[in-house]
Amino acid sequence: MSKNHGISEAVIKRLPRYYRFLGELLKQNIERISSRSLAGKMKLTASQIRQDLNCFGGFGQQGYGYNVSELHREIGKILGVDKMFPTILLGAGNLGKAIAASINFSARGCNLIGIFDIDRELTGKVLAGMNIYHTDELESFCKQYKPTVAVLCTPKATTQATVEQLHNFGVTAFWNFSHYDLTPDYDNAVVENVHLGDSLQTLTYKMNVLSEKENI
Amino acid sequence: MSKNHGISEAVIKRLPRYYRFLGELLKQNIERISSRSLAGKMKLTASQIRQDLNCFGGFGQQGYGYNVSELHREIGKILGVDKMFPTILLGAGNLGKAIAASINFSARGCNLIGIFDIDRELTGKVLAGMNIYHTDELESFCKQYKPTVAVLCTPKATTQATVEQLHNFGVTAFWNFSHYDLTPDYDNAVVENVHLGDSLQTLTYKMNVLSEKENI
Repeated sequence: MSKNHGISEAVIKRLPRYYRFLGELLKQNIERISSRSLAGKMKLTASQIRQDLNCFGGFGQQGYGYNVSELHREIGKILGVDKMFPTILLGAGNLGKAIAASINFSARGCNLIGIFDIDRELTGKVLAGMNIYHTDELESFCKQYKPTVAVLCTPKATTQATVEQLHNFGVTAFWNFSHYDLTPDYDNAVVENVHLGDSLQTLTYKMNVLSEKENI
Repeated sequence: MSKNHGISEAVIKRLPRYYRFLGELLKQNIERISSRSLAGKMKLTASQIRQDLNCFGGFGQQGYGYNVSELHREIGKILGVDKMFPTILLGAGNLGKAIAASINFSARGCNLIGIFDIDRELTGKVLAGMNIYHTDELESFCKQYKPTVAVLCTPKATTQATVEQLHNFGVTAFWNFSHYDLTPDYDNAVVENVHLGDSLQTLTYKMNVLSEKENI
């Protein structure tokens, strides 16, 4: 039986962070680490770490700590870093360009194989080492290369239609940067909405509370 | 007494989304909405919405629904959209450029007043309608214009030192896009870490679970 079913959403959200920190330890040739010192590095509590990592079976041993490389490998498998899902990016505007250039897709189980934009002026230009295609070529590209992951840096108004089209072409995972809240009604699709504006507003909220406190 | 203390982290994370949806309703001249139809639009349950919005006092009336403009205004106030916190952006690389060009800062209570980069080749170039300054000018700029919010699009290795410097200059809110997990040890500082790679890995995790299910 696979170990990675029934893990809570909260633990799942923390997994990539565990994976990063364990990767750092590996680079420093650290073979074992106690939940206590991992907790110190990650600013979590040791009991939180033990609880989280217990979800994946027995990588910790009382008094010996965790085997860093085993735990890193196991979390990597759960996160699918070995999968190399064929990935396309739609929308080569400011944000699309930044995502294509700054995200290490292959380290995260994704193989970026195509970039598309509706603007004919961009067709043929090179971004992140590959040519930008016109969206007219999307269907034939998908038939040939069968991408399963799409990064959406598209305008809000066109996102829903783009998703429906892509889903028909076999894409089932959507990393959505558009301002459209994507909640696809397909059973066999997964979504991560990244709403950067919401993140900024969470910060201003905290800032607001902070400045009120200081004015008391 | 201010209404916005003691609100749970989970509700806070949902507030910007409420604010966006209520803003859309206002644009459509919708004056009142029931928790049920708001729930339908936002893909939440009506009871979740009632529970969340009850935190901010009595904007809902049994049988009449919510007053859209009052609720929008109140949530806006809580989020600090009227504050116009003076904001600077550090790091005018791919991501910094995209953030400066694509985020509507002023709609979110922030006034972007300066962009800085360590690369002298960028000094004086125009981005989002303003000149890029060299980081050497950071101290005198901060003394003069007193920014309180900083957007960090800086490399991982330099982020901690940059934050310490900025905090000395009076910056207390950090919107952090660097790959460094920022947990400042100051009482009077707030942080939002945006780790885009972690978000992609959450997607590949879900994709991995999905493909395992389909292979059963």
